[in-house]
Amino acid sequence: MSDEGKELSRRKFLRGGLLTAGAVAVGAGVLAPFDQNVAIASPTDPTSTNEPMGLPWPYTPLDPEATKALAYEGYYARKCSYGVFYAIIKQLQDKIGYPYTMIPMEILAWGEGGGAGWGTLCGALCGANTALGFIVGPKQEDMMSVVAEILGWYTDYSFPTYLPPDDKARVKGALPSSISGSPLCHVSVAKWCDVSGFKAEGKQRSERCGRVTADVAAKTVEILNAWHEKKFVPVYKQPESWNECMSCHGKGKSLENARGKMDCVDCHTDVNPSDLLSHIKKAWNIKD
Amino acid sequence: MSDEGKELSRRKFLRGGLLTAGAVAVGAGVLAPFDQNVAIASPTDPTSTNEPMGLPWPYTPLDPEATKALAYEGYYARKCSYGVFYAIIKQLQDKIGYPYTMIPMEILAWGEGGGAGWGTLCGALCGANTALGFIVGPKQEDMMSVVAEILGWYTDYSFPTYLPPDDKARVKGALPSSISGSPLCHVSVAKWCDVSGFKAEGKQRSERCGRVTADVAAKTVEILNAWHEKKFVPVYKQPESWNECMSCHGKGKSLENARGKMDCVDCHTDVNPSDLLSHIKKAWNIKD
Repeated sequence: MSDEGKELSRRKFLRGGLLTAGAVAVGAGVLAPFDQNVAIASPTDPTSTNEPMGLPWPYTPLDPEATKALAYEGYYARKCSYGVFYAIIKQLQDKIGYPYTMIPMEILAWGEGGGAGWGTLCGALCGANTALGFIVGPKQEDMMSVVAEILGWYTDYSFPTYLPPDDKARVKGALPSSISGSPLCHVSVAKWCDVSGFKAEGKQRSERCGRVTADVAAKTVEILNAWHEKKFVPVYKQPESWNECMSCHGKGKSLENARGKMDCVDCHTDVNPSDLLSHIKKAWNIKD
Repeated sequence: MSDEGKELSRRKFLRGGLLTAGAVAVGAGVLAPFDQNVAIASPTDPTSTNEPMGLPWPYTPLDPEATKALAYEGYYARKCSYGVFYAIIKQLQDKIGYPYTMIPMEILAWGEGGGAGWGTLCGALCGANTALGFIVGPKQEDMMSVVAEILGWYTDYSFPTYLPPDDKARVKGALPSSISGSPLCHVSVAKWCDVSGFKAEGKQRSERCGRVTADVAAKTVEILNAWHEKKFVPVYKQPESWNECMSCHGKGKSLENARGKMDCVDCHTDVNPSDLLSHIKKAWNIKD
């Protein structure tokens, strides 16, 4: 029998067995418990319909401070992406239980160091974005709105602010902070190294990322709490330099050859948005 | 009663009910079905231990060509990140069933356009990396090895190659292809627009991303099939320019102020890795 066939048989068998149990129980005069057993075979249970519980999953407001402590520990277990995902999902497993209890949290560990150390999207944001999908989904525009807000907030925020208690801290005391201007791990770390003077592979940088993980998890929970109370209002605005560049490169404009919301001049350092004439002359090889 | 308390009670109640059902059944001479019912309360069932099935989850080799067709349709449903995640998880739901059937695939939709349109990590890679976590996890070094290989392959591959059949294609016929050199959505799209001459927000670019989604999903499945057969061997090598830069900026080197594996000169266009002396002079403001 194929795997699919076996699974189907297993489910049919379980359902049949449960219903039989209910019938036997009614005969035995113990109706209530077996009504509950039959209720296992509901549309939200994997043994009955083989379908996941539809989004959004239930949510209960979480405490940002407790979230920070969990995320910090999660970072030291399996780094940034897991840290945020763990901090949020673990609390929902404890407070709500099923179906969050079905999620193996290690699946998000890949985001470490901007994706297996590649330095792309900050791993803390990978963890945050995936966790919030359970609560904000399934409407695409809702998810995009919340994710864009968290990414935007990240680019403007001076990390880190979380100060773990001395008995938990791997590095004690406050650390220098910096604004990344970018959701990319590579940029975020490089700017912090530049501001702090600490090395990119040292324990202080690692501690800084543990605290960033805590800060991102707490912000995500604040946003999710607001979302849950129908009070979420996005406030992030794209930088003016992005608007300048997109006035030619963006959707519906003369060039329309770029996509994205990262601040362009973070990588395109040869472009001065307040002197676009020079940029245009250079790009089109126009001599004075 | 708190949500947590309710959940605990629900589980205790269900377990008690199931065991009672077993006892009643034994008395009624119908042992076998109720042995099966009691078996629901196993360590892998959410109603018993409140714990997810440990990683890795079961896997069965998937067909890359069937995966491409599913990913392409997934792209047109909810874009790139969902497309790859859907193509892989949907097949495992159909072929293996539980516990894959517990995963609401929309949670990965956030990766669209490099993360809600921000242009960071290509969404197809977000979907791929999260899907593979179920199969390759939970060992961190295993997951990092496979993710790094997929990201590396992406940077070198000339996208797109998938050609949907005419009766499915949203844009018919072959499209120009390009090598991104980067796992970032923004770079990948901009280079393709440059090579193809198509606009960044047009239907051809969208079709190109649908086909990239198919290509990434198929490559991920090829790697997972190899992993499953214990034949996975990473082959990606960092570009020489990266090695040159990291000889000063990398771990254990004189500056040690950068992390990441993206090709440095993709953004740092003012640096010529074959003329590092000029770069050093400029960085340190040394006159000839």
